[in-house]
Amino acid sequence: MSTQLHEYLAVVKREVEETLEQLVPPADEPPAELHRAIRHSLFAGGKRLRPALVIAATEACGGARAKAMAVACAIEMIHTSSEIHDDLPCMDDADLRRGQPACHRLFGEATAVLAGDWLMTTPFRLVAESAARGDLSPQAGLAIIGEMGAALGSEGLIAGQVVDLAQEGKPADDAVVDYLYSHKTGALITASVRCGGLVAGAKPEQMLSLTHYGQLLGRAFQIADDILDATASQAQLGKPVASDARHEKATYLALHGLEAARAEAARLAEEAQGALRPWCLDSPLIALADYAVTRNY
Amino acid sequence: MSTQLHEYLAVVKREVEETLEQLVPPADEPPAELHRAIRHSLFAGGKRLRPALVIAATEACGGARAKAMAVACAIEMIHTSSEIHDDLPCMDDADLRRGQPACHRLFGEATAVLAGDWLMTTPFRLVAESAARGDLSPQAGLAIIGEMGAALGSEGLIAGQVVDLAQEGKPADDAVVDYLYSHKTGALITASVRCGGLVAGAKPEQMLSLTHYGQLLGRAFQIADDILDATASQAQLGKPVASDARHEKATYLALHGLEAARAEAARLAEEAQGALRPWCLDSPLIALADYAVTRNY
Repeated sequence: MSTQLHEYLAVVKREVEETLEQLVPPADEPPAELHRAIRHSLFAGGKRLRPALVIAATEACGGARAKAMAVACAIEMIHTSSEIHDDLPCMDDADLRRGQPACHRLFGEATAVLAGDWLMTTPFRLVAESAARGDLSPQAGLAIIGEMGAALGSEGLIAGQVVDLAQEGKPADDAVVDYLYSHKTGALITASVRCGGLVAGAKPEQMLSLTHYGQLLGRAFQIADDILDATASQAQLGKPVASDARHEKATYLALHGLEAARAEAARLAEEAQGALRPWCLDSPLIALADYAVTRNY
Repeated sequence: MSTQLHEYLAVVKREVEETLEQLVPPADEPPAELHRAIRHSLFAGGKRLRPALVIAATEACGGARAKAMAVACAIEMIHTSSEIHDDLPCMDDADLRRGQPACHRLFGEATAVLAGDWLMTTPFRLVAESAARGDLSPQAGLAIIGEMGAALGSEGLIAGQVVDLAQEGKPADDAVVDYLYSHKTGALITASVRCGGLVAGAKPEQMLSLTHYGQLLGRAFQIADDILDATASQAQLGKPVASDARHEKATYLALHGLEAARAEAARLAEEAQGALRPWCLDSPLIALADYAVTRNY
């Protein structure tokens, strides 16, 4: 990762985490069990890639970072909520997430479901309040709320998780892998850059270009994730490795092998950069596409 | 129930169900398992009391029913989502809901969690789209989204369910019961009438009056629910009776006995009607308060 991108991500991560700290009730505020569970998962130390995409897209379209901050935090909350529910015993039954016990392992299944519910619904209120304060135009606020809802529903994360679970152990093909990548990963990554554009009042051609970038980046990012699952150590990932193979998950890697997966991830990252090229040359979005496929955790 | 209210509720129920039918993807649209689970719970035959409250509040404030319809459906989706998650094995472990198997009994826990997630997040997009179409002013759309989010979060349903579960089997007092009633029931009922008011652009004094009505009605409705749990038959309720006593739930009835609970419910219903009196005399909201405490299912 370039020094410049490293610094950009570090600053954004710090600012996002400071804002999230303000947006979630204190751990001792009743019901304390709920707020502790939310904080455990939200502050477990993620890369904050999606909020960085929101903010970088806003800035690439000439918008101010401060106006994107609530939206960036909202997207990170949605991402965390989906991780909490995906880790539940009735789903992926994961014990570890980012080197920490999964939410349900510390707080029990009921509280984990409810902490996920909180993190999945509060973002909509946050964006509505941000628009009511005047950080966003009312139209942009409503459009962002629509994007976030769509990224979760029948074209997004929730549908992707249903198909992912139904698919376990069954023979997969490229169509299934495409569906999972676009719903489970692509939808929220695309929503991140689109919402960033909406904060800045991006022009239609910029929105189109951000959409293509997001779709390509989402796919590149997920293939890179699958490669890490197969090749990295548990210490690097903070969770058990080779979990895709164990659960017989449908991945590009499983279908086409490691070498082809590496080439495809690199190709997609380059194509994502190309999608921005007409108008956006020196944004962190360009370096982020490289980082998405070369990171080691 | 008066004939007039009976007809009003029947018409509203039909219109709400017709609209919900349009808003949820068909049962055979992929992922079909998700959409079938959503439809199973959403069309299990509820009273549709909350959407009726939205619509009646809109009409009482001079607004048109058609403009309230998306909001009414959104509130009903949120209500259904909370029932699906509350029924999960890790929570109340309920097998029956409205005479039908609970969602997780038919579709498994994972799909039930995800169907609840869908029904909890789609409402925000629906309201945003309704405002974008011009049914609501952008400001009203944003305010309604804020109300719905608040009715779920740390002051609403999710917090109420956390405390309800933590409280089971422990000694309760009036403060605990107040907390549960205001969070688990009052928050969404109050949000229903407030959102109805916001659709119609209600004046501040009308909003205040609707808020008091909702808080009192929510409490009356829940005490009546507890009385039915203790006195009605399984055939009437469509679920096992005496479940509060079995789970040692904190209720007004458990603290003060049946006679006092009946008197309190009647008193609260009358007080709720009084809260509307200055400006709203012949709305179905008045008869709804009687119905909330005299219904037999």
